[in-house]
Amino acid sequence: MIGGWFTTPAGVGPTGGDVAPGSTGAPIEVIVGVFVLLMAAKIGEEVFRRLRQPAVVGELVGGFVVGPSALGLVVPGEAILVFAEIGVVILLFQVGLEVRLDDLLRVGRVAVVTALAAMFLPIVTGVAVGLAMGEEVGAAAFIGLALAATSIGITSRVLAEAGVLDRRFARIVLAAAVVDDILALVAIGVVSAFATGTEIDRAVVLGISAVGIVLLGLAAARRARGLKREVFTWPLFADTPLVPSFLLMLGLALVSAVVGLAALIGAFIAGLIVAETEASDELEHEIRPLGLIFTPFFFALTGTALDLGALVEPSVLVLAVALIVLGVATKALGGYLGARSTGHWAGIAVGAGMVPRGEVGIVVANLGLAAGLLSTEVFGAVLLAVVATTMAAPYLLAWAVPRAVAEEAAARSG
Amino acid sequence: MIGGWFTTPAGVGPTGGDVAPGSTGAPIEVIVGVFVLLMAAKIGEEVFRRLRQPAVVGELVGGFVVGPSALGLVVPGEAILVFAEIGVVILLFQVGLEVRLDDLLRVGRVAVVTALAAMFLPIVTGVAVGLAMGEEVGAAAFIGLALAATSIGITSRVLAEAGVLDRRFARIVLAAAVVDDILALVAIGVVSAFATGTEIDRAVVLGISAVGIVLLGLAAARRARGLKREVFTWPLFADTPLVPSFLLMLGLALVSAVVGLAALIGAFIAGLIVAETEASDELEHEIRPLGLIFTPFFFALTGTALDLGALVEPSVLVLAVALIVLGVATKALGGYLGARSTGHWAGIAVGAGMVPRGEVGIVVANLGLAAGLLSTEVFGAVLLAVVATTMAAPYLLAWAVPRAVAEEAAARSG
Repeated sequence: MIGGWFTTPAGVGPTGGDVAPGSTGAPIEVIVGVFVLLMAAKIGEEVFRRLRQPAVVGELVGGFVVGPSALGLVVPGEAILVFAEIGVVILLFQVGLEVRLDDLLRVGRVAVVTALAAMFLPIVTGVAVGLAMGEEVGAAAFIGLALAATSIGITSRVLAEAGVLDRRFARIVLAAAVVDDILALVAIGVVSAFATGTEIDRAVVLGISAVGIVLLGLAAARRARGLKREVFTWPLFADTPLVPSFLLMLGLALVSAVVGLAALIGAFIAGLIVAETEASDELEHEIRPLGLIFTPFFFALTGTALDLGALVEPSVLVLAVALIVLGVATKALGGYLGARSTGHWAGIAVGAGMVPRGEVGIVVANLGLAAGLLSTEVFGAVLLAVVATTMAAPYLLAWAVPRAVAEEAAARSG
Repeated sequence: MIGGWFTTPAGVGPTGGDVAPGSTGAPIEVIVGVFVLLMAAKIGEEVFRRLRQPAVVGELVGGFVVGPSALGLVVPGEAILVFAEIGVVILLFQVGLEVRLDDLLRVGRVAVVTALAAMFLPIVTGVAVGLAMGEEVGAAAFIGLALAATSIGITSRVLAEAGVLDRRFARIVLAAAVVDDILALVAIGVVSAFATGTEIDRAVVLGISAVGIVLLGLAAARRARGLKREVFTWPLFADTPLVPSFLLMLGLALVSAVVGLAALIGAFIAGLIVAETEASDELEHEIRPLGLIFTPFFFALTGTALDLGALVEPSVLVLAVALIVLGVATKALGGYLGARSTGHWAGIAVGAGMVPRGEVGIVVANLGLAAGLLSTEVFGAVLLAVVATTMAAPYLLAWAVPRAVAEEAAARSG
């Protein structure tokens, strides 16, 4: 930045710092960070594709390489966090666009059973391990919860890239993820109230709001069936459905976040709603460039969180390995048990799809830390487990999905 | 945000603060700000369109209404600044995509004369006013410079919306803006060196680098003529030209910013380069949704900077009015004198197109403030003048452009 020439003590724009003349006042280093992270994600993807490895793992590795614990070229700040969040919101909106509401409701019962099983097993296991390690009940509950949360982002991407979102097992994963997120919300509320001694009725209120929001969204999707394109294009600013739909997506994502659900649940529901209207195809086309630019930030950001240096600490290493192994095993088994009525390989694919630990795991660990129940090692271990399970999912899915597809085809023709 | 439940002392993500569970750690208020600002821009646009007023002024007003000096719903932070900067970068990239290099070079000489005239007049006037006000030469020079910088963002948008980017006067404005930015860079360097007593040779080096970068870019555009689509789509991650082109755009914008030019100059050149390739049409289509989402942030952000409250201070009011009147008059006259060889109304349209003061004006004012040469009133007045001239431009253009178009049509048929 031109040798500090334009570094003015008064600063330009709310953030101060170096700015280019003629710019909006955005610190130039931040835009460099945005550029480097996107570039790293795409180079990582390219290398992984050429090695016939999952593209999305390449984005994660690209993020790791330029991130704080490796080269240190990019230190994610507010702008990159927002890009990543909007990226995963757009991803789930796109997934919602490809799913028909009726297909989703048809797997509703299996999805609820799957979510319950895939939540119950990790919690019980986590609590048991915690108690066996001599922890108190509260701490053990946090360990269980950290194991229980599912993040659907990477699975959505892998299923979408494989072109199997219309399969029954894919719909089960999606529906179960919604149910899972509601359950996690309530569970976090209960455990948190228990741990900190605050009112438990808040957890109940939040749980009810969350269920209410989701049901309202699904009802809206049903009402949206066959709506004309003009519903989106009546404003003079909207030549096409893009901007109104984008606002709907972001708005529902925020409502979802405010009641305590993941923002991506709201975005998924927004996608379901728009999918039922006549604007669906046009919008699928229009949202694609936005997804191509924003979504890599989500995966690259996850990569930047990976801190291999923490592994030199034996206690963190042991805990991380335990979290990863137990997390993968219990979630996969829970998913399998819940969904195997659909088929053996379908059950395995569902289990594999639910393996990625969410950022919810990090939030839970943070809560436990704040309540003085968990050690700082646990936080480091949870971070490692989140990234590791996210990286494992594409490989597990690459193994299970083709078999599940074949099984479903055989069942149809048989 | 759920009553502080998820507010953990440890914080989640680099920025800490409130985060939604299952989020990337982006503070939820920031995403609310992004949502509110985009919504406000679009509502402002809608109202203005229905009143048959320029859409882009509606976006500015929308930003003003929710900004810190009115409702205070949005306080622009890093994320919004980055959205705005990328927004104007995409806008100029789109403009570059619509312009042919040869057409631009054909108006080269007129553009240089125009840029010189449109820079010389405001500087001389500003210096004269400053000296008449009893200021020292250094301070007077800063006032002149603050009057001299042109921001091409809003003019580009108005010309693009009017569908006249292929007209001769439009190309003169674009080419003159590039020359203008180089001249401003050198002038700021010289005045800054003069004011702070640092080495003047840096200004020369920067000026040469800037010219070099622009010439290199134009040479690259010439070499890019007729390049196959595969130049962009050979990476496995690129099914379409979008992502590689986006990286090229952002990369050149950053190079441009690093040598001290406005980032949008680099983006414009990137657009010129891609425009010459066979990927041009496809890319124009793909970049559109990104422009629709990002670009409103640039104009809405400018609106948030408008502080009508500052006008109660009589000295700021007088200075702002003086800056606005002199800024509009001298720039329009300079543009007219430079371009009138093309036609009477074409000259007026060029003059009108060069009226918006840039954020460069703010940077100059900041430098003067830091050097102890200018008062805080000047800073407030410059901010007002930047927004006011930006708001005036669409009206001036709405008056001049149709007449210039008619004049050009008459000249052709005559």
